[in-house]
Parts: sequence; C-alpha cells; structure tokens
Amino acid sequence: MKKKPLILVTNDDGVNAKGLQSLIEVVQPFGDIVVVAPSESRSAMSNAITVKIPLHLKQISSLNGLTKVACSGTPVDCVKLALNQVLERKPDLLVSGINHGSNSSISVVYSGTMGAAIEGCINRIPSIGFSLLDFNPNADFSVALKFAPQIVQNVLEKGLPEYTCLNVNFPQTKVENVKGMKICRQTKGMWKEEFEKRVDPHNREYYWLTGNFKNYEPEAEDTDEWALNHNYISVVPVNVDLTSYNAIQILKLWQYEGQNK
Amino acid sequence: MKKKPLILVTNDDGVNAKGLQSLIEVVQPFGDIVVVAPSESRSAMSNAITVKIPLHLKQISSLNGLTKVACSGTPVDCVKLALNQVLERKPDLLVSGINHGSNSSISVVYSGTMGAAIEGCINRIPSIGFSLLDFNPNADFSVALKFAPQIVQNVLEKGLPEYTCLNVNFPQTKVENVKGMKICRQTKGMWKEEFEKRVDPHNREYYWLTGNFKNYEPEAEDTDEWALNHNYISVVPVNVDLTSYNAIQILKLWQYEGQNK
Repeated sequence: MKKKPLILVTNDDGVNAKGLQSLIEVVQPFGDIVVVAPSESRSAMSNAITVKIPLHLKQISSLNGLTKVACSGTPVDCVKLALNQVLERKPDLLVSGINHGSNSSISVVYSGTMGAAIEGCINRIPSIGFSLLDFNPNADFSVALKFAPQIVQNVLEKGLPEYTCLNVNFPQTKVENVKGMKICRQTKGMWKEEFEKRVDPHNREYYWLTGNFKNYEPEAEDTDEWALNHNYISVVPVNVDLTSYNAIQILKLWQYEGQNK
Repeated sequence: MKKKPLILVTNDDGVNAKGLQSLIEVVQPFGDIVVVAPSESRSAMSNAITVKIPLHLKQISSLNGLTKVACSGTPVDCVKLALNQVLERKPDLLVSGINHGSNSSISVVYSGTMGAAIEGCINRIPSIGFSLLDFNPNADFSVALKFAPQIVQNVLEKGLPEYTCLNVNFPQTKVENVKGMKICRQTKGMWKEEFEKRVDPHNREYYWLTGNFKNYEPEAEDTDEWALNHNYISVVPVNVDLTSYNAIQILKLWQYEGQNK
C-alpha cells in the first residue's frame, strides 16, 4: 500500500491565522498534516533567518493526523526546524499560507509566505505559496478552498521542476466570478514607498512604512497582475537560481584586469 | 561640467562594521557618499522589511562629501528610507557590504547585504553587493580594497542590465594569490541545517541554528563556489525577476479545470 503523503504547512501570519486554518482544510484530504508556523505574525520577513537569538518550539495539538507546532522564529526558521527537529521524514509537499494579502509581482521578494515556500524548494520539497488578495483577518477564503485542491493534487502527482516552487495568488472575488487559473510570469513593478513621519511624545522623529504598488507593464497579459485584475488565479513558477544568464554574456564583455573569461 | 556621482552605501553588519569602512574607502574616490546603514548588525535579514514597528534615523556625521546615517531597521529599510527621506536625488550607484562572510551560492537568498542590493535594483539603481569570505570582525579587506574599484568603475560607466544587480564575493587570501575575477552563475547547493538543542535554567528547550554548506555541483567550473575555491573573485549577476520561464512551458501542459492557456 502506498504511504499517505506527509504535508508540511506553514505561513507568515501566525499559527492562529484564518488563512492557515483554510489551508489545513485544503490539504487535509491529501495526507497527514504537520503545521509548524510562527507563534505570531511575521509578515514581510522574506527569507530571513534567526541567527542571533535561540528559537523555541511549542506543540499546540496533535490529533487524527494533524499536528500543530508554534515556532518563535521567522517562516524560514519554521521550515528549517520542521525538517530538522519536528518531522520524522522529508515531507512530500510544503504549502505556505494562505496569506492574508497579495504576494504577486515584486512582493514575492519580501513575502514571508514565499520565503517559506522557497526554503522548501531549496530543500528539494515540492512547495507552494498561496495568497489571497485580502488583508482582512476575517477574509473570505472560499475561492482558495474551491481552487487550491486542484493545484495541490497536480503538484503531489507530477512534482515540480528542480529549483522551482509556485507562487499562487487568488483574486478577491466570489467563486462564480473566477475565470480560471493562469500560468503567468512575475509582473515588473515596484512599491513606491512613502514614509509617514511622526514625532513621539519625547520629540523624536519616527517613520511608518506605507507605499503604493507601481505596475511597469499594466497592459502585459502574461503577467500575474493582469491575471488577478481580470479575476484569474495567478500561478507563477518561481526560480531559486537567481543567476541572470543573459547578463553573464554582457558582463563577460567587460574588460577586467586579470579576468578569466 | 558633469555632476559628481552620488553613491549610496549600506550593509547588514551595521554602521560601525569594518567592512563598511572598507567599502567607503573603495567608493570615496568616485563621488559623494551617503551611508544609511543599520545601527547594529542585521545579518541574514534577506529582503525583510519592517511593517509592525516604526523606524528611526540618526545622522552620525556629515563632512567633506561623506554623510553617515544610522537606521533602526533592516538593510532593505535602510535603502527605502535613504531613497525616500535622506537623499536629495536618486543615487547613481548603490553598494552594499563589504559583508563579513560569504554570500555565494544559495546564501544570496538569506543575505541582508544582497537584500539591500536587490532593493536598489528594484528601484532601478545600479547596485552591487560585496562580501569577503571571512567572518572575523577584524577581517583583512586588502583583496576587496584592491579589486572592488574596477567593478565600481565598470558599473558607473556601463550600468547594469535591467532588473540585474551584482553579487561579488572575495576569496579569503592575500592580494598576490588572487587569480582574477570570474563572471559566474550561482552554485546549486543548500545549507544542511543542524540545530543545537539546549535547555535553559527554567528547563525550557531551545535551539541554536548552525549548519554546513552542501555543494551539489563541486566540479562545475562556471559556478561562484568553484571560482572562490580557486582564488578567483566571483561576480554573479542576480536577477530580480524570479519567474522560471522554463517551468511556465511545463506547467501549461497541466490540465486545470477552466484554465486559460
């Protein structure tokens, strides 16, 4: 008999987030579930790891093929500790999310949700980050609950190419409005930062980060932003080899002293 | 008369690190220098940004074309605040480092030094991260002082391809042993994590992250690890578009319900 798949679940909104609970619902029919997630929200932590302070793990519950562990560290710490200390064998799948808020376009770079998925991918585990375009702590995850299982099933059956994980974003709409899924590329864009400057009661200035997303290519129909704006679910394959192979050719033309071409 | 270049300098080891001082020495002949760096060490922060607490800036000094500002945030926060609050115009170059320790291979993903360079790149500023393969706080930066200026000059003169920044690592050796520079790709590899489990005086278990690098392709001569192991300086062009274009073709073959191909 084939072994039941072992699925590692994590996120960056914390072990008590509604999005995590929704993701457990999505994957529970597919196998045994171990959750190792941050004890509190660790948004925008990217691939950060904790090196200066020690980490704590706390088992919350373990029942009927579902174990939940809270971790004091970042999403990537959660994955590393799960693989090294919590799980008895390498999981068949890692899923991260469902993030409360978009991780499309350049947000993939800052996202803790995607940081965890990338860490899974580095460890050669098929890994998917899921996000919903709704920051609300009580967001409606119906679209994700309806469409995520197909993606999970595909990845469990077919795997993913080496060094590749998936960045899946769900539009903020009703299930009946979803036009389908679209395999996309990452939109070229950036966050135009604006800081709100304030003065504290002791007369010290301080800054709060805010910002607006700027899309450099709003007309490009093969991008994740376009897909989401048109009520598609966007699926972007993310590469963990960051080398710009095109640029290697350009740089080799530069004349460096003593350079080996 | 042509304007003097404006150069933004940052790092992840903090505003008082020796590597930062060395980097200032490298770039000072090329233009006016503004340093915005973390007030203390923020290693392994990747592209993390601070969203839950406010940020502080503190000007340390400003003299003869060299201004130094300490920032309470991550390396990426430093870059965002520098561009938005500190600098009067967009800089002509961003340099980050010189990191005390390697950022070759997969370490590019966790590195705060490279996080800052990637943030510069997202903001369409030619950006370079520099690292030396020596964790020692009193490391000898002679190799970097000798060879980094050529790279800085090339980037100032020729720019970099869109969405591309440089990850430059210097071997830990004497200047006379350096064989030259090598344009490389990121080595495929990972950190094999091992956690050291301890028990605190209150009988709580805690974990310290340790680990060893595992090179998946030690024989590949076009990689940064190979270059560094053979006393070359490695220069890897890093892409901020993480899309795996090869994987797009594979994923499009999957049959999704209602999927738009």
